[in-house]
Formats: sequence, structure tokens, C-alpha cells
Amino acid sequence: MTQADPPAPLTPLAFLRRNGRVFPDKTAVIDGARRYSYREFYARCCRLANALAGLGIGPGQTVALLAPNTPQHLEAHYGVPMTGAALVAINTRLSAGEIAYILDHARARALLADAELLPALAPAAATALGGLPCIVARAEVAPAAWEPPGTLDYEALLAGASDADTGWEPADELDTISINYTSGTTGRPKGVMYTHRGAYLNGICNLLEMGMGPDSVYLWTLPMFHCNGWCYTWGVAAVGGTHVCLRKVEPGAIVAAIEEAGATHFCGAPIVLRMVAEGAQAAGIEAFPRRLRVSTAAAPPSPTIIAAMLRLNVDVVHVYGLTETYGPTTVCEIQPAWRDLPAMELAQRMARQGVPYMLAEDVRVFDADGREVPHDGATLGEVCMRGNIVMKGYFRNPEATAEAMRGGWFHSGDLGVTHPDGYIELKDRAKDIIISGGENISTIEVENALYAHPAVQDTAVVSRPDERWGEVPVAFVALRPGQTASEAELIEHCRGCLAHFKAPKAVFFEELPRTSTGKVQKFVLRERFWSGQEQRIRG
Amino acid sequence: MTQADPPAPLTPLAFLRRNGRVFPDKTAVIDGARRYSYREFYARCCRLANALAGLGIGPGQTVALLAPNTPQHLEAHYGVPMTGAALVAINTRLSAGEIAYILDHARARALLADAELLPALAPAAATALGGLPCIVARAEVAPAAWEPPGTLDYEALLAGASDADTGWEPADELDTISINYTSGTTGRPKGVMYTHRGAYLNGICNLLEMGMGPDSVYLWTLPMFHCNGWCYTWGVAAVGGTHVCLRKVEPGAIVAAIEEAGATHFCGAPIVLRMVAEGAQAAGIEAFPRRLRVSTAAAPPSPTIIAAMLRLNVDVVHVYGLTETYGPTTVCEIQPAWRDLPAMELAQRMARQGVPYMLAEDVRVFDADGREVPHDGATLGEVCMRGNIVMKGYFRNPEATAEAMRGGWFHSGDLGVTHPDGYIELKDRAKDIIISGGENISTIEVENALYAHPAVQDTAVVSRPDERWGEVPVAFVALRPGQTASEAELIEHCRGCLAHFKAPKAVFFEELPRTSTGKVQKFVLRERFWSGQEQRIRG
Repeated sequence: MTQADPPAPLTPLAFLRRNGRVFPDKTAVIDGARRYSYREFYARCCRLANALAGLGIGPGQTVALLAPNTPQHLEAHYGVPMTGAALVAINTRLSAGEIAYILDHARARALLADAELLPALAPAAATALGGLPCIVARAEVAPAAWEPPGTLDYEALLAGASDADTGWEPADELDTISINYTSGTTGRPKGVMYTHRGAYLNGICNLLEMGMGPDSVYLWTLPMFHCNGWCYTWGVAAVGGTHVCLRKVEPGAIVAAIEEAGATHFCGAPIVLRMVAEGAQAAGIEAFPRRLRVSTAAAPPSPTIIAAMLRLNVDVVHVYGLTETYGPTTVCEIQPAWRDLPAMELAQRMARQGVPYMLAEDVRVFDADGREVPHDGATLGEVCMRGNIVMKGYFRNPEATAEAMRGGWFHSGDLGVTHPDGYIELKDRAKDIIISGGENISTIEVENALYAHPAVQDTAVVSRPDERWGEVPVAFVALRPGQTASEAELIEHCRGCLAHFKAPKAVFFEELPRTSTGKVQKFVLRERFWSGQEQRIRG
Repeated sequence: MTQADPPAPLTPLAFLRRNGRVFPDKTAVIDGARRYSYREFYARCCRLANALAGLGIGPGQTVALLAPNTPQHLEAHYGVPMTGAALVAINTRLSAGEIAYILDHARARALLADAELLPALAPAAATALGGLPCIVARAEVAPAAWEPPGTLDYEALLAGASDADTGWEPADELDTISINYTSGTTGRPKGVMYTHRGAYLNGICNLLEMGMGPDSVYLWTLPMFHCNGWCYTWGVAAVGGTHVCLRKVEPGAIVAAIEEAGATHFCGAPIVLRMVAEGAQAAGIEAFPRRLRVSTAAAPPSPTIIAAMLRLNVDVVHVYGLTETYGPTTVCEIQPAWRDLPAMELAQRMARQGVPYMLAEDVRVFDADGREVPHDGATLGEVCMRGNIVMKGYFRNPEATAEAMRGGWFHSGDLGVTHPDGYIELKDRAKDIIISGGENISTIEVENALYAHPAVQDTAVVSRPDERWGEVPVAFVALRPGQTASEAELIEHCRGCLAHFKAPKAVFFEELPRTSTGKVQKFVLRERFWSGQEQRIRG
């Protein structure tokens, strides 16, 4: 049916416009010693928009961005949409070839970049960057090692542009505000389209889930290119909070930023939480004086890390989501009755991915026939989402969109169960699950068994081809410093707490390959055993 | 232009549906000794919807409600819209004739009522109630003194209905969820239509402005019939907070509810704040152990009341709005730099109505030509609003809608100025302002001068006809218990702090007539002088 025009479109641009007016003197962005008030931040975003418009950028086009967690990155989140164009924030760990593919597929009309990251693009200079206006923020810390010819200076461009608001807002709030390319471990990256409406709603939803207000100070440990920083790039401005930029995510830098800027909130994979614990220990900090709250995803927080965070005065909130859901879309809400549980039991409950985010309409686990699985904590199905905080579709890829969105639900590819209390728990990625002698083995379950061993710091379980069983599980393990454990000891430990067929058949001791967002790259580990083999077709 | 279908409509029904599932065992509603969990509350709302559907109620229809702040009132806020019908919550202080007018104008198809309030309807039994199904919640405290023939019992009806969710959601999120009738001091009451989208957004906006989360306990000192309780009826459920019902708003009952239910938030006119102060004093409470936050409107909070609240551990947030803006639409955001101000200066800043609510798109002061007034704190204009938290229109009154919404902005009829920092301050209602010898006199300004006198507890200034000046200001004053002040003394006091022509020409010592929401009924006072006179055409 046809909707009537809403009185005003939902767009995150409204957040900046309000707080440029309401909190002009309040600090919007902290970047080391530099601080931008909301007046300045708003003016800089307007200048960027006018400068881009001067380069011919406008509605329906796209502008790419390659930058660490800097003020420029935040400014692009407003300045680009203020022209009517969509922002394509690119993962900074990608190769020149991968970035070139995205620039081309997204039809980028300009590239905003940080000088530090440009040299990695040199191999693609002739092709991907040919003719593309490249606007470079030159870090004060070091001169650029390489820049494409004809590069424009970001600060000079801003200085020469008007600081008047373009006044642009989407004619339809379902217009695209950004396109985020998936990591593409199973083929070419796909461009996930976010709408102004979805970005607005998930930006606000984060605030509600994390208890954020005008006094909140948000520390950028999560990459801003990751789902537009889970929409915190926009949400923090909705309440007039303060962003703290962080060019390098390291234990010392995190703890220094928490102490100096008075951070109250941050996000990240468990590896970021471990950095906080390490950094605090190195700095001799027993607990932060101001309460913090961290939203963590990618892997369940362990009892050890939850306890370590609590001792440091950091509340842990476990969330789950994907690029296609604007970042977090479930949260493990803490029930009042859980407060009295012993630490181990609390951590077990908190390890679950939980329930729909406050403003996420619905998240369910479906069986192969599209029926919700029984709430028995055992029946495996695919986690599916629908609602306002689900992507509009894949850019220039209607087939993949139709496949992912069949029946009106987004199919995540993640396998999970629903517990009797309605909480969802992931068991595996559809592509990670191991089928051994016809039995499903959740690699997460085996990993959790290994994590329960005191010597295990980090682990990943993948499948290895097996003549008899088809596949068997094998484990990669990084031990805690100063601790030892043998392969046989760890296998025996797993047999002690799992069905025997689930115990790893081999253990390899080494550091794990991780993505920039802290996820273990299991496909890298799997390739060692499967390369040359015909791998099973997976869901 | 035509909007695409959103992935899911924004509707407050989603709040209940989520938290019926996420927090089934958490307390949703406290009513004295009775507690309903979210599971029970959700089920009762579903039962109400199914019972109403069984009576033939459905989309496009309306259901009226006449009840104090009871669980039935909250349930109607979900149960009625779950049938697709719109809720008409009626001011419980109205006369039988006024209620009859609303029942007829709103085309109510059923009346949900509290037994305590029914007797007031007896005079309209033959007309307004003729044939209208009347569903009565019978208070346990006292038997109903009068009920119309054929009355249905609320609890019996719920008990006989299914607790399955109707699953209804609006095909268009701009569908009407409720109609709220204005107080109609200047003619017949007008029915202000709220949309599902607007109710959803203002419900959330309250949470952000008030810093509410799952642990919040909201105390119902504000009438739920007033702008649907400023949309807190819906917003509290969005975070899974707890409602505390309050049948009678009295100092002792408020303080008891704060203590027993652990309330964290409430709303009300300054008179409610004074009740809290009185109740605490009577109970020997120096400060509440748990921090509270109150959202206050209708009149600026005085320095005295702000200080009294802070001593009690209650934060004061000053908001402003009208029925047409879903309740609050501006807030006097506290700037970080204000924290060090002396109490009097802080109170002066907090007395201003402030800036747009976080999710209110825009609020401006316009001159007669529709241009924004200069931000000089002096130029008077009309406060106008536009955006998602502005009504859809007046029910069955397109002429009044077009007049109020001319140029796409809602014209509030309130006169104010914009200060250099962008904060709006009301100077008067368009109909209250006094024009004396061609000069504007803000009655609020004169009242503030009187409030600065230590003996003045309550005051209202209105116009009196005058041969020479056209109009002159006169004051009604209630003195603090045990204090005295003469007419001449108060006039002299005003001449000491105002231009002489602004000082009242007479002072009458008496209690002020107030509406159920704490607003002084100036028209009642004005009528004494103007009845029989031809009054100036205003606004």
C-alpha cells in the first residue's frame, strides 16, 4: 500500500543540526589534544558538504572513505549525506585490489582518505584512482609516504568552503545514507545499503540499550568503518555526547583516553576488553573512577573477562548483529533475577546473544521450512531478522538481496537455538558448523570447552577432512603467557565435558589470524586442510 | 512525493510485544498492593483487544476512556489500538455535558470507565450513553454509586476473552492511535489526532531526555488522559520499565509510592513538585535514598522549588508542549557551563522553555509575517513547531487544522522570545497578553515579579478593562501559610522591579482556580471583569 508523507523524514542529519544549535559550546569531538565544539564540528561537516557539492557530488551518488578513527571519518558521516550522496566507509585492512573493487562497484565519485592509509593504495593508482578526486587529510604525525597525483588537501578544501548548512534532507527516508561492504569471505564483497530511517533508529536504539545521555563520552575502539561504527557515529550526536577518536587501538592508548577524556562508553570484540584489562594493569589502575559500559560482540565475553571488567568498574553488554543489521540487533538483556547469580552462571547466561534490540522489530530462529524452532535450547535453526534495522538490500545485486531477504526476513547464515526464556544463542556460522559422521558439531561449543581450561587464552575450532567421518574437529590454541598444556591434555579435557565425537582430533599451538574487528578468520585456518579438496556445499 | 513502504511500521504496540517476550517476569505495573508482570500486563492488553473486537470494535473506530491513573487506563493504551481503533482518553474533571459532547464528536463506539467516575455521567445517561457499550472497572475500594443500565464488567470481559495477540499493526504508521480533546477554553474542544509514528517517537524521546532505562520506575502523578500521559504510557514499556499507578495525587500518596515502589521518574506541574516537598516534610524525609528525576511543565519551576527538589535528591527537567505536540516538545537542556552558577541564576536559565526536544524536528518563534524573530531575547513572536511530534490534525475539523498548520508549522498561540543562545522563553499565551496603552505586558513577567516576594505562594495576573489604557493588569495572589502582605506592599514591590505600567493596578487575595493539570484557569479570573464587555479580538 502507499504510505502518506511523514511530517519530516527520519535522518541522522537532524541530530547534528539540533545539537549544533543546542550545544554549540559543548565538546563534540576529542582527537588527542585537539577538541572540536559542536559549533565547530557542525560547521566542518557543512564545509565538507559544500566542498563536495563544489566537486559535483550530489544525490544518488557515492563518496568513498578510507580513514582510521579520526575527526575526518566522523565528519564524512554527516558531510557526505548532507550533499544527498551515500557514504562508503571502507575497511582499512583491505588490499589495494579489494579497495579498487569496492571503489568501482560502489561507483564512488570521490575518495576521502587519511594520508597514513594512502600508500597501501599505490598498486591501484593507475586503475581505481584514475580520475577519481582524492581528498586527503594529512596527519600531523607524519608526512604522507605516497599520494596519488592531483590530490586535494582536506583542510584546505574545508577552509575554502561555506559553512552554511546545505539544508538537504532525503525526500524519502528510505533513501540510502551509506553502503557498507561485507568482508566477503565467501565471494566478492557485497554492498549493504543503509537507509536514513534505519540509521536514525539504530543510532537511538544504541543510546537506549547503553543508557547514554548528554554527559556520555564515547571512545572509538570500534572501527568507524564497521557498520558505520554500529551507527554510534550518528547516535552519539543525537544526545549531544562527545566522541573520542583513537587512531590506534592499543592497551596504553585506550586506557589513556579513558582517563584523560573521561570516557563512559565504548564497543569492541572481547579482544578490546582484554586490551583494556592489560592497559589498566600496565598503568597500575585497579578501577576506573567513572563507571563505564562496553558493548561487546563477535564472540561471547568469558566469565574471566566479565569479572575483570566489573573489577575495573566496566559494565559489559553482550550484543550481536551483522553488517546487514546496522551492527547490533540483539542484546543479552540482564534480567533482574540474574543479579544474584554466581559469576559463572551469570557469564553463561550473558554468553547468549539474547533478545531483539529495543527497536529491532523481530529476531527469530527458523528451521529449513521457515517455521520458528521450538524454544528448547537444542533445536538448531537459522537466525533471521525483519524490521526497520535490517538493510534495504545489496547495492547493484538484486539476486543476492532476494536470496537473503526471502519471505521478508533477512537470513543471517548464523545457526542458533532459542532457549525456553526466549533468548537466542548462536551455535555456529552455517559455513563453520562441522558435520561429522552425520552429527552436527558446533565449533563454538568446542571452543567454549577449551576456554574452560585454565591454560587456554584464545582458540578456534575448524573442520578437517576425514576418510571415515567426512569431517572432524581440530583446534587452534594460543596459550596464556607462562602456561603450558599438551595436545593430549586438552583433548582429554574436552572429552571430559563434551560428547567424545565433539572433542578435537588434533590441537595446533599458534596465534590466531583475526580480522580488524576481532573475528577469527576461520576460513584461513580451514584452507590449510581443505585446499585442493572439494569442500562441502554449505547453507 | 510517494514514500516507499517502510520495513515495519513505527508503533508503540511493538514496545509491549517486545517486552512481553523479553521481560515476562519483570513488574510492568504496580497498583497499590497489586503487581502485574509484563507477561500478565501483555496478556491483559491482548484480552482487552479481543473483548473489544468481540463487541465489533475495529480499525477506523474510536473507543473512549474515563478513568484515573489505574492499570485499566494503561491497558486501554494498548488494548484499544491492538484492535486498530483509536483511543479517546477523556479528562476526568469534565462535566457530563462536556463528556457527552466528546463521546458524540469522537463517534465513540464504546466507553471504558472507572466505577468511581461514572456517577458524574448520570446526567448524560439518556443521551450520550444511550446504546453505547459501557465497560466498567469496578474499584475494590468502594461500590459504584451509579452505573448506566447494561454495564459490562471489565474484569469479567477480560476473563472471557482470549489472551492471544491480535497481531494488528497499522498499514500506515500515520494511522491514528489516539484522539485527545483540548481543554476548549476558547470554544468547543478540538480532537487532536496522534499517529502511531508520533507516539512511538515521542515515547522514546522522553526516555532519552529523562535518562530512562530498564531499571526505571515511573510514578503516575501526571494524568494519563493528558496527551496520553505525555506518551509515557507507551514509552515506559519501550525500555521495560515499571509503571506505578496513583489513583489520587496527594502529598502523602506520592511520597509513599516513591518510597514503597522505588520510583525514579515522574512528571507534573510545579504544584506536583510542591506536593512532593510537602509530603516529604510531613513524613520526616530529608532526601530520597534513590535519585529521582521530574519533568515539569505548565509553569517554570521557581528557584525555591528547584532547590527544594535538589535537597530531596530530585533532578528537575523543565519542558514545554501542548496537546498538539504529544506533550513535551521543548526542554531546557542544562548546559555544562551552568553547573557552577549560583542557584538564582541557574533557576533563571531553567525557567526558559528551552530548545527542541531531541527528536522534535524544529521549534521556532515567528513574527506575524512568518519570519523567525531575531535571537535578542526581546522580540515577541509566536512559538511554532513542525515535525514528527506534531499532531496529524484535528478530528473532523479540517478548517481548524488548516488554520493551525498554515505554512506547514503548527501555530501554538503561545508568545515568546528567542534568546541569543537559541533558547525560547514563553512570555504569554496570545490570549493572555495584556495590551495597555499600546504596550505589551507579559502576564508571566508580572507573575514572576510577584513570585519573587517572599509571602507569595501562588499568583495569576489577568487583564481588566480600563477607560484610559484599554486594559490594565490585576493580580490574584495566594499567600504562604503564616505570611502576610498588603495590596499596596505587593504593588510597590512590583514597581520596584518592573516598568511602572506593568505593575498590577489591584491585588485580590484568594485561591486560584486550576485545571486538573495544574494550569491556572485565567479565563475564569478574566471573566469577572470582562463578562458583558466586548473583549478584544486576539491572535
